Amino acid sequence: VSNKSAQASEFLSKLSSIVGADQVLTEVSECWSYGYDNSRRHALPEAVVFPSSHQQVRDIVLLCNEESVPVTARGRGTGTTGATVPVQGGIVLSTERFDQTLEIDRDNRVAVVSPGITNKALQDKAGEYGFFWPPDPTSSAYCTVGGNLAYNSAGPRAVKYGTPRENVLGLQAVTGLGEELRTGTYTTKGVVGYDFTRLLVGSEGTLAIITEATLKLTPKPEAVQTMRAIYNSMESAAHAVSAIMAQPVTPCALEFIDGAAIQMIRDYSEVDLPANAGALLMLEVDGKQDELASYAGAIKTAATNDGLTEFTVAETEAAKAALWKTRKALSPALRKVAPKKINEDVVVPVSNIPKLIMGLEQLAKQHDITIVNFGHAGNGNIHVNLLTDPSEESNRVRAEQCLADVFSLVLDLKGTISGEHGVGLEKQAFVARELDPVSLRLMNEIKGIFDPNNILNPGKMFPARDAL
Amino acid sequence: VSNKSAQASEFLSKLSSIVGADQVLTEVSECWSYGYDNSRRHALPEAVVFPSSHQQVRDIVLLCNEESVPVTARGRGTGTTGATVPVQGGIVLSTERFDQTLEIDRDNRVAVVSPGITNKALQDKAGEYGFFWPPDPTSSAYCTVGGNLAYNSAGPRAVKYGTPRENVLGLQAVTGLGEELRTGTYTTKGVVGYDFTRLLVGSEGTLAIITEATLKLTPKPEAVQTMRAIYNSMESAAHAVSAIMAQPVTPCALEFIDGAAIQMIRDYSEVDLPANAGALLMLEVDGKQDELASYAGAIKTAATNDGLTEFTVAETEAAKAALWKTRKALSPALRKVAPKKINEDVVVPVSNIPKLIMGLEQLAKQHDITIVNFGHAGNGNIHVNLLTDPSEESNRVRAEQCLADVFSLVLDLKGTISGEHGVGLEKQAFVARELDPVSLRLMNEIKGIFDPNNILNPGKMFPARDAL
Repeated sequence: VSNKSAQASEFLSKLSSIVGADQVLTEVSECWSYGYDNSRRHALPEAVVFPSSHQQVRDIVLLCNEESVPVTARGRGTGTTGATVPVQGGIVLSTERFDQTLEIDRDNRVAVVSPGITNKALQDKAGEYGFFWPPDPTSSAYCTVGGNLAYNSAGPRAVKYGTPRENVLGLQAVTGLGEELRTGTYTTKGVVGYDFTRLLVGSEGTLAIITEATLKLTPKPEAVQTMRAIYNSMESAAHAVSAIMAQPVTPCALEFIDGAAIQMIRDYSEVDLPANAGALLMLEVDGKQDELASYAGAIKTAATNDGLTEFTVAETEAAKAALWKTRKALSPALRKVAPKKINEDVVVPVSNIPKLIMGLEQLAKQHDITIVNFGHAGNGNIHVNLLTDPSEESNRVRAEQCLADVFSLVLDLKGTISGEHGVGLEKQAFVARELDPVSLRLMNEIKGIFDPNNILNPGKMFPARDAL
Repeated sequence: VSNKSAQASEFLSKLSSIVGADQVLTEVSECWSYGYDNSRRHALPEAVVFPSSHQQVRDIVLLCNEESVPVTARGRGTGTTGATVPVQGGIVLSTERFDQTLEIDRDNRVAVVSPGITNKALQDKAGEYGFFWPPDPTSSAYCTVGGNLAYNSAGPRAVKYGTPRENVLGLQAVTGLGEELRTGTYTTKGVVGYDFTRLLVGSEGTLAIITEATLKLTPKPEAVQTMRAIYNSMESAAHAVSAIMAQPVTPCALEFIDGAAIQMIRDYSEVDLPANAGALLMLEVDGKQDELASYAGAIKTAATNDGLTEFTVAETEAAKAALWKTRKALSPALRKVAPKKINEDVVVPVSNIPKLIMGLEQLAKQHDITIVNFGHAGNGNIHVNLLTDPSEESNRVRAEQCLADVFSLVLDLKGTISGEHGVGLEKQAFVARELDPVSLRLMNEIKGIFDPNNILNPGKMFPARDAL
């Protein structure tokens, strides 16, 4: 037995003594399945460990810091940026068995949860008390609250109710030195010390590992009304989005699909859409049952312009399902056309959506790639889909060049390269285009304070140090 | 001329060359009026400077950093904690003439403002476009947006619309090294890099000086309905607050006054309040005109319990004014009783309000000080007023002992010692009771990164370094 493997085996035995042998995976075949995320990137960790308490997380990080072993925290691997792929080896710290706490404090509209609780489990439990937690990523049935916080992952309801950042009160966490801290408050106001809660939200596991979250809940609305608006051009639809957002009735969903996406749906499924549809908005308002008609009226008024060709209000559950059917037909259609498509989540100011869509049309031609767009229009958060197969080398190169142009376009339009997916590995090379050198240096130094030995999710989020 | 005064005069001449001689005050009598805030503390700065641009702020900070001169940023001095009192001398950087930018971007629900714009100027301008900015401190006619951001100052509307933290998108700022950075985005979603926007919000001018803010606006509701509920005990009122906050109609104001405060109002003004009033809630709901009756109904249902003795809905503007008259009679009454009263802004979870009020009654007896409470009940943000004259030594000592007990009580009840006033000098000694040692050390190190020479508002917010 070599010295190195003796060390490795001693490390693993220490790890086992913290969590129990049955909470550590070391077989390559088993480790393999915790080395990926939804980016289709993959790297093999040396071990996977399943802590189920704050103290265990502390002990694991203390051990790893002592032995300079990288620690990549992972929820359920539904991320799309490779942020939880352990590219520098070390261990994957999976929170999937760290789901002991799920407490609803009705009187204070608060939930206290372990990081491994799924978004859905939280919604179900909160629902029993008449509440919900606003963030609702598409993956909500599987993704964890810890992951939602790590990437500030929002979803459609953010247009009315905000992102995780606006819906978290406090955290308990463990730094890269294995120190514990509590951030924020149990209350909805508080201004004592720097805001470490939001510093950790969106930090992608690079500063600290969240071991408990205190979340702000919102009372469930009595009812929801669904509407669909069809426009002859994306520009008309985008003007409608601005008009809708400028009046007092804020929709709880304001999703859009562009003309190319509508064409795709028409080609691959049986849905009834007018031939001249250049863009489509799906809208929802929520509130008390007897107010919804009035809300829908306000939305219709704001949504009406010269380009509006059809406005439908779903009067029944069946009608509602029928309206959503079009939107739901999109993902299968896209998967059929391009199973390995690239999906970005850029954001531009709402008023710049038309310019973005026009620019994307030009880039599609220039790089000879079909681009289909849909997303959370109320936030200007556009999912730009490049329908290509990047596993073929020439496609990959073309897609990369196109993406670089997409990000430049987005930044020129006062936007951001990520609205809710984060940076991870995918956008690392582009971060320095969005953030100024001073901010990058300060962030790097803050990383050095929380995690001096760079063991927490190393090699992610920021450009490599020597690239700065 | 001594060497020291030659240096000082060279410094002042450099300062003048940055902003112009008419933008620098050096006369003691003039400087004196920029050395105080609403805490009644006072210190004399060596000079007061009035920059009116980002570049001037940079040049001032660069100069001060070179010469190790403290820089205390100041809006209009409406703060209550001494945070803008230049206790270590140096210069006061007043933003009161830095008010050039006030742009409303209607399509994107955004305002871009200079830090010296007053809250009211922003509200007036936003109002022309049908918007408002939710933070509305009592001092809104005078206080600046820069100050609101520095202390995360909110006001009554926070219960529905959040604090500055939830209503700011991005900042431009200058660090203690005179470096410039841009934080956040122009959009309502964005997760690239650490959240420096919220790191700076609430940092009391200790990390960087804000030179521009991009704010999230909210469409103005069509109408507001005012209600008043009177209870026979504070406990009943507090239970009503929990019940109101647990149902879907969130009020846009949920203020309370305790029994001692009601007694004070009754003694010092002509208002019509039942003799057995133990607590009072002032409530407002906003929305479309035709919804308000339904909202008011929902609030009344939630507010009703065994202790409710009177529930009044203001049907006219005159009735509304009459209801607010009681609340507005409170401050003059308190000023009459105790012109130098101590006003704290603690927060506890809504469900702990009764325990807080009971505990405060005990502390009032124990320390022989009249304590009167009112505040933003929906956030659990209670203004605890010690009716004493701390300029008399024995009173001061008694008040300090009482305050220490108040803060301990608040922390025991899972609260925070400041909801919207901040720490400044007033609560410095108590910060280490609320924040854990790890957080305090990390905050101190972050301060060191943003401001290595400790020139930005030195000696504030945190315990003295040697006390750590």
